[in-house]
Amino acid sequence: MTDYKWLKNGSVTSAKGFIAAGVAAGIKPSGKKDMALLVSEVRAQVGATFTMNQVKAAPVRLSMEHAKKGCARAIILNAGNANACTGLRGINDAKSMTQEVATKLGFKRQEVLVCSTGRIGIPLPLAKVKRGVGKLVKKLTCTGGKSAAKAIMTSDTYSKECAATLMINGKTVTIGGMAKGAGMIHPNMATMLACLTTDAAIEGKTLIKLTAECVEKTFNRISVDGDTSTNDTVFVLANGLAGNAVLDKNHPEIAKFESVLIEVMRKLARLIIEDGEGISKVVELTIQGARNDLDAKRAAETIARSPLVKSSWAGNDPNWGRLMDALGYSPAQVKEEMIDIYYNGLIGVKGGLASSTPMTRLRKEVRNRNFSISIDLHQGKGCYHLLVNDLTEEYVTLNKGE
Amino acid sequence: MTDYKWLKNGSVTSAKGFIAAGVAAGIKPSGKKDMALLVSEVRAQVGATFTMNQVKAAPVRLSMEHAKKGCARAIILNAGNANACTGLRGINDAKSMTQEVATKLGFKRQEVLVCSTGRIGIPLPLAKVKRGVGKLVKKLTCTGGKSAAKAIMTSDTYSKECAATLMINGKTVTIGGMAKGAGMIHPNMATMLACLTTDAAIEGKTLIKLTAECVEKTFNRISVDGDTSTNDTVFVLANGLAGNAVLDKNHPEIAKFESVLIEVMRKLARLIIEDGEGISKVVELTIQGARNDLDAKRAAETIARSPLVKSSWAGNDPNWGRLMDALGYSPAQVKEEMIDIYYNGLIGVKGGLASSTPMTRLRKEVRNRNFSISIDLHQGKGCYHLLVNDLTEEYVTLNKGE
Repeated sequence: MTDYKWLKNGSVTSAKGFIAAGVAAGIKPSGKKDMALLVSEVRAQVGATFTMNQVKAAPVRLSMEHAKKGCARAIILNAGNANACTGLRGINDAKSMTQEVATKLGFKRQEVLVCSTGRIGIPLPLAKVKRGVGKLVKKLTCTGGKSAAKAIMTSDTYSKECAATLMINGKTVTIGGMAKGAGMIHPNMATMLACLTTDAAIEGKTLIKLTAECVEKTFNRISVDGDTSTNDTVFVLANGLAGNAVLDKNHPEIAKFESVLIEVMRKLARLIIEDGEGISKVVELTIQGARNDLDAKRAAETIARSPLVKSSWAGNDPNWGRLMDALGYSPAQVKEEMIDIYYNGLIGVKGGLASSTPMTRLRKEVRNRNFSISIDLHQGKGCYHLLVNDLTEEYVTLNKGE
Repeated sequence: MTDYKWLKNGSVTSAKGFIAAGVAAGIKPSGKKDMALLVSEVRAQVGATFTMNQVKAAPVRLSMEHAKKGCARAIILNAGNANACTGLRGINDAKSMTQEVATKLGFKRQEVLVCSTGRIGIPLPLAKVKRGVGKLVKKLTCTGGKSAAKAIMTSDTYSKECAATLMINGKTVTIGGMAKGAGMIHPNMATMLACLTTDAAIEGKTLIKLTAECVEKTFNRISVDGDTSTNDTVFVLANGLAGNAVLDKNHPEIAKFESVLIEVMRKLARLIIEDGEGISKVVELTIQGARNDLDAKRAAETIARSPLVKSSWAGNDPNWGRLMDALGYSPAQVKEEMIDIYYNGLIGVKGGLASSTPMTRLRKEVRNRNFSISIDLHQGKGCYHLLVNDLTEEYVTLNKGE
């Protein structure tokens, strides 16, 4: 195991040289905080992943361009409005958001990244946003992470942040981050908004590659509702202030750095799934023995999208028949008589049939808020792992209104 | 338009020479009717479609074999137990069910088809089933359709049946049917259980082809929850007692017969979707202008599976942003700026942006129990049509328990 330490009250400003703030700019009708700004005191390398949805929000399109430059100084974020499906006006609004930050802080516009989250299809209230930027730049502090994490919440019930430290070349390196989630969560490249910061010195291309690889293993492995959003974005900023020898693919400690980056992302992803809209369960779903990894992924995602499977979990009902049904209509190759299903390690289905484990015993496992389901298809060596929520009446209630 | 007439109180026994019955055999804990038997007084040609789910219930597997013979005399059905994921015992139980009917009525076992519906993974209570068959054969009558339709209900809130007549060669031909639905409904070949009967004389191969084509346009175009069941089956029995010249692909009135067969199936499919579990809306979803028909189907099915889209309908919220999002992550090719969306013919989205139609006007349309959404992707000539329900708290409540 890599030696690393979680920081108490870790946040996106735990790493050296990062400052942040969160304010209420009046975008959310509730009057709650709805804008955040994250700044690196020196230029930072950028790693990023964006939604694979063909319909991409304006801030996603603009940030994709800016991230290509490889360096950034700031990320401006708002909640309460997704600035998606807003056409040319949306692009211009996103540009204005970044320009406003750049002007106020003396950066180039291309050095400012932007994220939005909220309802789709409504133009951004730009005057409010600009006033919000004005307030934000005045409040930037090295303890502002907590406030920023609160400001990017939508239907989240708590803010999501953490940070860990490790040693690289005898120097203390910190990796921290914040995220928001709750709904429209289904793995496809990036899923939701997350900003990570580190004071590690790392070569640009290595950071880009690591970001994609770590996102694939963490944020892409969670599913609240099977809906991939238009605004999903993950940023990793690395400003080098820890003073370590620059990390690249040949650095002896690159694997160590990667493993802690994964841990931080995994923690944020877990916080998102634990706070899924209206959920009452978090299920660790593992598919193994699939024909190949892609088949394993398809089987897992079909289960993660089945309202019947997910409703049964909400009712503490193992109902493995619905799992068998979903496996059967998934695009993965399955043979009914080869399927084994385990609940928290207890066998529930053996060779496609009810095992000798009493249903009451299985029900006891499913009654927990957290439990695991492992499915062995016995078709090959493919495997996949996914964290998935149940489906509750509360999810529907939350998503009925605007 | 083809000239045909709906029969008042039409049922699966409206066509000449069909008798049926429904009884309570004690499979459902509620004590309600749970077994039905449908018999043709003479041998009937068989058309059939079965679930495409890789996990197929024992009665589906057995009926697939029997249907291959091309002729049948009876269909035995039970609700309350799906006889799925029950292995060799399940197959033997399904065989016993058909053998019991064959013995009692003097048919060959292969002339008896079988359907089961209910919970997956529990062995059939065979002694009860056999006693049920004994009761059924004594109650067979030419007015037994209504009772049979009641006996195959599971979470259905009403029984589903209808019949229509048309003239072929100056002879009155009747087509009738019964179906059950409610949950685990998503198009994939056959969807749910439906038995249709006709006294038309029709050549075997023509009936098989017509059945598949008509099912594709009707039962396969409804989606309650995106879950394709292990037990889906549609049978069409044609016994020839109407005395028309045998229908084959060269018969001048084959198209007329087909169009009425489609109408009867469409009516049963509509009854299923109107009675979807916990639903409050039925939406006629049309995708046009897709790159091809497959793309149109994919776009429609992605929307039909989105819990966010379906929850918004339950809340009378047009929320076209969620439609744009679902289109974006669907496997269909879309260009955001080309998408138009209409609610009951009123334009809500023009070129990927909010139209000038006020949201309050769109909300008025979505407040109806029945409304249409037409989406033009402007990518080609592909189109697809689907009836889809909303997602309500009641759906979750119904599916939480056993």
